[in-house]
Parts: sequence; structure tokens; C-alpha cells
Amino acid sequence: MDDEIENKLEKCIILSEIENAYRAKIPGIVDAIIESCSNEKCFDHVDATVIPSKDSVIEILDIIRNILYPGYFEDQIIDSNNLPYHIGGKVTDLYEKLSKQIAHSIIHDCHRYGQECTECIQRGQKEATSFLQKIPQLREILASDIQTAYDGDPAAKSYDEIIFSYPGLFAVTVYRVAHELYEQNIPIIPRIMTEYAHSVVNIDIHPGAKIGHNFFIDHGTGVVIGETCIIGNNVRIYQGVTLGAISFPKDEEGNLIRGTKRHPTIEDDVIIYSGATILGSDTVIGARCVVGGNVWIIQSVAPGTTVMLKAPDLIYKDHYTS
Amino acid sequence: MDDEIENKLEKCIILSEIENAYRAKIPGIVDAIIESCSNEKCFDHVDATVIPSKDSVIEILDIIRNILYPGYFEDQIIDSNNLPYHIGGKVTDLYEKLSKQIAHSIIHDCHRYGQECTECIQRGQKEATSFLQKIPQLREILASDIQTAYDGDPAAKSYDEIIFSYPGLFAVTVYRVAHELYEQNIPIIPRIMTEYAHSVVNIDIHPGAKIGHNFFIDHGTGVVIGETCIIGNNVRIYQGVTLGAISFPKDEEGNLIRGTKRHPTIEDDVIIYSGATILGSDTVIGARCVVGGNVWIIQSVAPGTTVMLKAPDLIYKDHYTS
Amino acid sequence: MDDEIENKLEKCIILSEIENAYRAKIPGIVDAIIESCSNEKCFDHVDATVIPSKDSVIEILDIIRNILYPGYFEDQIIDSNNLPYHIGGKVTDLYEKLSKQIAHSIIHDCHRYGQECTECIQRGQKEATSFLQKIPQLREILASDIQTAYDGDPAAKSYDEIIFSYPGLFAVTVYRVAHELYEQNIPIIPRIMTEYAHSVVNIDIHPGAKIGHNFFIDHGTGVVIGETCIIGNNVRIYQGVTLGAISFPKDEEGNLIRGTKRHPTIEDDVIIYSGATILGSDTVIGARCVVGGNVWIIQSVAPGTTVMLKAPDLIYKDHYTS
Repeated sequence: MDDEIENKLEKCIILSEIENAYRAKIPGIVDAIIESCSNEKCFDHVDATVIPSKDSVIEILDIIRNILYPGYFEDQIIDSNNLPYHIGGKVTDLYEKLSKQIAHSIIHDCHRYGQECTECIQRGQKEATSFLQKIPQLREILASDIQTAYDGDPAAKSYDEIIFSYPGLFAVTVYRVAHELYEQNIPIIPRIMTEYAHSVVNIDIHPGAKIGHNFFIDHGTGVVIGETCIIGNNVRIYQGVTLGAISFPKDEEGNLIRGTKRHPTIEDDVIIYSGATILGSDTVIGARCVVGGNVWIIQSVAPGTTVMLKAPDLIYKDHYTS
Repeated sequence: MDDEIENKLEKCIILSEIENAYRAKIPGIVDAIIESCSNEKCFDHVDATVIPSKDSVIEILDIIRNILYPGYFEDQIIDSNNLPYHIGGKVTDLYEKLSKQIAHSIIHDCHRYGQECTECIQRGQKEATSFLQKIPQLREILASDIQTAYDGDPAAKSYDEIIFSYPGLFAVTVYRVAHELYEQNIPIIPRIMTEYAHSVVNIDIHPGAKIGHNFFIDHGTGVVIGETCIIGNNVRIYQGVTLGAISFPKDEEGNLIRGTKRHPTIEDDVIIYSGATILGSDTVIGARCVVGGNVWIIQSVAPGTTVMLKAPDLIYKDHYTS
Repeated sequence: MDDEIENKLEKCIILSEIENAYRAKIPGIVDAIIESCSNEKCFDHVDATVIPSKDSVIEILDIIRNILYPGYFEDQIIDSNNLPYHIGGKVTDLYEKLSKQIAHSIIHDCHRYGQECTECIQRGQKEATSFLQKIPQLREILASDIQTAYDGDPAAKSYDEIIFSYPGLFAVTVYRVAHELYEQNIPIIPRIMTEYAHSVVNIDIHPGAKIGHNFFIDHGTGVVIGETCIIGNNVRIYQGVTLGAISFPKDEEGNLIRGTKRHPTIEDDVIIYSGATILGSDTVIGARCVVGGNVWIIQSVAPGTTVMLKAPDLIYKDHYTS
């Protein structure tokens, strides 16, 4: 064995020793992490009860969308012969998954408030059944939203294009589903649903908001609609619109008061252009108002009014003479 | 059997009866949903022909990206020996999938207009072939976009970082692919592609827009570029910029007129800073203009001009003295 | 064989010949694409060394999140009995994957600068180990962020809702992980991580920014935080806030100077409302300042100051009288 090979071998052994030295640190690291788990400053979900599964909630949304828009998002062709089996299969699957997740979210909540959990499983089944019974109405109101998108957007080539690809319709579909569950007082799941839509299309509608029929959000990126908004029928909203809160009242102990109305009311037939911000629980935008782009409103506007920013002063500089 | 056990058993039987009662409602719910499918107010895709598959369109984009940027998004190392097999395999796969989806989108459109579909399969193959032939030019124009990103962004550490992680490049890559298919008059698929990019990186470029070489979108969240925009070469755009329409002309029957120019024209070498809004079909931003942040423009600007918002009046309040 | 059948057969043969003709073009297309790969104008990663895998980096983030928030994103229930095995398994898996990707990113960088790569594998293991050792501190600082979200948002129903669904927490979690790797001078991977979060929740935090504890981003869509920002403790930021650069100094050869401070400093206890833009390396927002919605700031603000836009002039038009 000549020197060169011996040197290399030696180097190999040293490198392998280094590798082993790093690997040997893992048990200590694991212990430190576990210790940090029991630190009350940190958050974990250990020794707790079951929790809803985020992945399963997203899968549920997928199944619901297949039922709401039959035939659009399928690999197979749906015709009137196989439709009953198709819908039947989907609804059964949805019932099993939704009742399980609802039960988990209720058990999780019982546990959080230190209550004993009785009949949570049955309540999951009851609430899932109630939700399923609302699907025909959901299909009708969503059809009104699709019609409004088509009527309001000259870039829309067909209804199918809207169903396939419009981010606003995706967000409104998920919101309408989540809102029904929110109204049934199901914890956690509605918010997981709308935050999923928020992450997919960047339209942030809180499941608590109340929104009428024929609702259309165009482009949509950056739209924020707060928990206690009330929105009438035939309302159209563009990208970057915020319907938000002004101030957050606190109780005597300095904790935030949760659950009071904090967000504005938008009456029927209102159009709100991009970037407008409307804030406050007492702010009412009257019926048939038009709110111009980038307007910032914190007080009510009478019905039938157009509100615009006064054109701001612009400064023009010619590159060559100045 | 003592009382306690008997009580529990009885409770078990009752709970199981409750469960069965909920389950027994499913057939009625399924019938109600199916009935709502045949309601003409609702949208479904039943008894229709084949439709393009959204999942497949996304997979196609993935393959195209692997061909456009060879070696970047692969698990294996690509070298000059295996490159021909690699590209050959990807292109063949792309041809099969793209020609099928194009055919589906054409059949779907024929059906929608009540036309008979002749040679739709062959047209799918023809259009897929045309698209494949454009890939070398696409690679060239995308290289100009990458160069411009590197030259314009001091946070860019390398070209590779841009290709790996820049959302603007992702959106522009998908747009350039979708635009070629849009120019070939392929229905639905181009919009599915750009709305997919919109959902991933929140940059909303309509496939109909015309955009020159060396185009760079920095950060990008909230950018909206409308269907009939015309953008020259060497244009740089920041987050939140809208290139949009002002008004939507209607025909005598009150229906929107689709397909006319509604969006602005941006000439060569223009920079548009974050949050600027430029609207209207007759609005032309002349060559070498600089449009400042948050500016709102609805009329043309002469070449070589810088347009800025006059600094708005700010109110400063000291917390302690006021 | 009657005429009709013969005609159909003939048509079949013609169609199949057309199909073959398209297919026969593929080899030529493949050659053209490969030729375009060797064009120096285009970007490829052929004959290069290994590169980090984007998919694997995303998988690593997933594992890290499971370790940071034990029990929240699991299919199984974690209790104090199985916790050590659970964390032990995750940490070992993370160590293997992270040390491999770090090694790849270092080898890739060595290659780029034409350096010989010695002990890159071992450096990968060393840096992965350093990162793992920081996990307990990461858990603590993230707990402060969660507490601040709960204290600042009346729509938050529980800590669990925040961990499950808040986009701001997702972005800050990924940022805090990426920042540690950035501080360890790991190339490419930190930016892939934060751009992944950017694509999921549209909050764009550069891994180079320095951010104190108790940080909360509400809603978050469109937030941009630049590479050289310095943010203190207890800072709250709303959607659409930009902390950016004004100008990009160039060196004598006209190339951008990279790596200097270009972004503002935000001191402790500052609140920045939606749509505000704060630019420039010398801009310091003093402690306890409140920056109002849509404010545009390019100079420093003294501590304890509230800065608001002067209410802009609005134009109200009654639809019926005007």
C-alpha cells in the first residue's frame, strides 16, 4: 500500500468519524426539544384529545366541490345514467368524512373548556346531515354568483371558464360552505376552510360574514372581508378591497372583547372598486352606491351615491428638460 | 346483568339507532341534490362531452417547465450524455398529453356552439405540434426575462436563485406558454394555466395580453394585467400594479361587448412602481416613462416623463403631548 | 363492401396518416430544443453538479413544522408515551434530509465560483446539526408570536385556530426557520423556503430580514419585507404593508451593488396599518409609533408618533340629482 492510498484511507476514516460525531448529537437534541415541549411557554398538542385534520378538511372541500359542480372536476364523463351513482357515492363519502371531522372538532372544543364530551360522535352525524341538506340551496346561490360573474366581466368567455378558473368563484364557493358550518356553530373547521381558500386564491373572507346572492369578486387578490360584515345582494367587489374593523374594544381586564360587530354593512347593488377600504361597525354603504378605487371610508354613505377620491395632484417631470 | 350494565347497553342501542336514523336520510338527500342538478338555474356538466382536465393542464405546465429549464427541477442530474433522451422523453410525453387536452377543449367548444366536431383529434395534434415548435423561442425570451430580473434586483444572489424561487418568473413563464396557446385560439386551457399561476404566486396576467422581451415583475403579489394590454420591451413592474379597464361597453341588448381593447398600452423601457393603477384602452404610457408608487392614471403620458404622486399631507401626533 | 364503408375506411386511413405525420415531427423538434440548450443566451442546468431539490426543501419545511408544533399536523394522537419516539423519528429524518440538501447547495455554490469542493458533505452535516440545536429557541420565539396574534385579533377563537389556520403565523414560522439557515450562510435554500411561503400565503419576507419576538402579521396578503430590514420586538403589521428599498446603487461598471442595507428599521412596539409603504435604508420608525393605513414614508419618524394620511378629499355624487 503506497503512501497516497494510505493518506486517502486515513482521510476517509477521519471523515467517517466526523460524520459519526454529528450523528451522536441527535439524541441530546431530541431530549432538548422534548424538554422544550413541556415548557409552558410553548405550544404543543400532546396528551390532548383528537383534533380535526387539516388535510381531511381540504379533502372534504374537494368532495363538496365535486357535488356542487357535477361533472366539472371529474376524470370520467358524467351522464344521466351514472349521475345517481356518482352523486350517491360522493355524498356517502362526504357524510362519513364530514361527520368524523365535525365530531373531532367538537370533542377538541369540549376538552378545551374542560367539559365532558357526551354524544359528540352523534352530534357530528347530526350536523353533517344538516349540512348535506343545504347542498341544493348552495347550488342555487352559487349559480347566481356565476351568472353575475359572467354578466360583469367582459373577459369571461363562457360559464365553464368561470367555474374552471375564476379565483373569486373558488373563494366564494369555499366561503358559502364554511359559512353554513359556522352558522351551525362548528368550531375550527370553517376557519380552516376559508384560510385554505385564502392561501389558494388570496381572498380572505371570514366564515362569519353574511353575504347575499349574486356576489362577484373580480381578480380578487388581497380582498379582506371581516367576521361581522353584512353584505347585501348583487354586490360586486374588485381586488384589494378591505372591509375591516377600526378599533378593538377591550374589557375591564384589558382582554379583547370577541364576538361583537366590528365590520361594515354593504347594502344591495353596491360596486366597490379596487383598493378601497371601508372600516367600522357603524359604517353603512347604502344601496346602489359606487365606491371608487382606493377610497378610504370610515363613515356611512347615503344610498345612490358615488364616492370617488378627488384626483390627486400628480407631478410630471420631463427627463430631458428637468 | 346488573342495572348499570343494562343501562349502558340500552344507551348503546339508542345511540346506534340514532346513527342509523341519520344514515337513513342520505338517499333522500342524494335525490334532492340530483333533482337540483336538473334545475336550469344551476350549473352542471352532465350529459356533456369530454372536458379538459384541470389536473392534466397543471401536469402539462410542469412538463413544459422541465423542458424550458432543463436540469433545474429534476431529481436526477442531467448531463450532455443523457440530455437527448431526457428531452426526447419529456417532449413525447408533452405531445401526447397536450394534444389530448387541446382536442378535449376544442370538442367541448364545438359542443357548446352546437357544431359537429370533425377532426378535433387531429386538430389537437396539429396545435400541439405548433406549440412544441415554439419552445426554442420561448427559451430565448425567458432568458431575457431572467437577465432583466438579475440586473434589476440587488437581492438576487444568482440566476439559479431566480429560476428556483422568483414568483415573477414563474408567472411570466406560465403566461408566455399560455399566450402562445391563446394565439392559436385554443379555448379554456390558456386561462386555466394563468389562473393556476395566479393561485400559486398571485400575479394575474391574462393570456391575451401582449408582452415584449426583458420583462420583470418584482415581488409581484397583487399584479393584474388585463386581456388587451400591450406591453413593450424592457418593462419593469412592482407588486400591486393594476393595468385595467375603465368601463365595459354594452351592446343594444345590454350584454357586455367582449373582445374589444379595454386595457392600456405600455411602451418600451417603462418602470411602474408598486401599487400604481393604469386604466383605459386609450391610455398610452410613453417610452422610458417612470410611474411612481400608488399613482392612478387614466390618460396618456408623454414619453420620457416621470409621474409621481404629490407627497400627501401627513398628520403627525405625539402620543404624549396630544 | 359498399361505398359508404369504403369511404369511411379511406377517411380512417387518411386520418391515421395525418397523425403519423405530426408524430414524425417530434425528433426534429427535440433536436431544435437541444440545440437551443447549448445556446449561451439560454439558461439550463446541464453538465452541472447536483442542485438542491425544491420538492425536498418543501418536505423539510413540513417535517420542521411537525417538530415545532408537535401533535398539531399529525394523523395520529401524540401523547407523552409516544412523544419521544415521535420527535426522535422526525429529528433523525430531518437531519438526513437537511444535511443532504445543505451539502447540495454548498456543492452547487462551490461549482458556481469554480472552487474545488472539499468536505461539503461534512459541512452539510455540521450545519444541519447547528440548525437542529436551535429548535427549542425557535419554539419559544414562535410561542411569543402566537400569543401576540391571540392578544391582537378579536377574530381569533383559540390558540389552536391560529396554529391551524393563520397565514401570518405560517409565513413567520417559515421565515424564522429560513433566517437561521441564512445566518449560517447556507445558499439558495433559505430563499426557496421563504418564496414557498410567499406562494402559499402571499407574505414575502426575505430570509435576510431581522425580526424580533412577539411579531404578528394580520391577514397579510401582499406584505413585503426586504432583505435588510431590521424589525424590533412587539411589532404588528397588516396586509399590504411594504418595507422596501428606494434606490439601488450601482458600482463603477454599472452593476448593482448587492448586500448593503437598503431597507428601513422598525423599532419596538410599532403598529403599521394596511397598505402603508415605508422605504429607504436610513428610515427609522421610532419605538411605539403608529403608522396609519396607506401612509407612504421615506424619512424617519420620532418615537411615540402617530402618522396618518390627511383624510383625502372625497367627491360625493348623488345618482339622481347629478
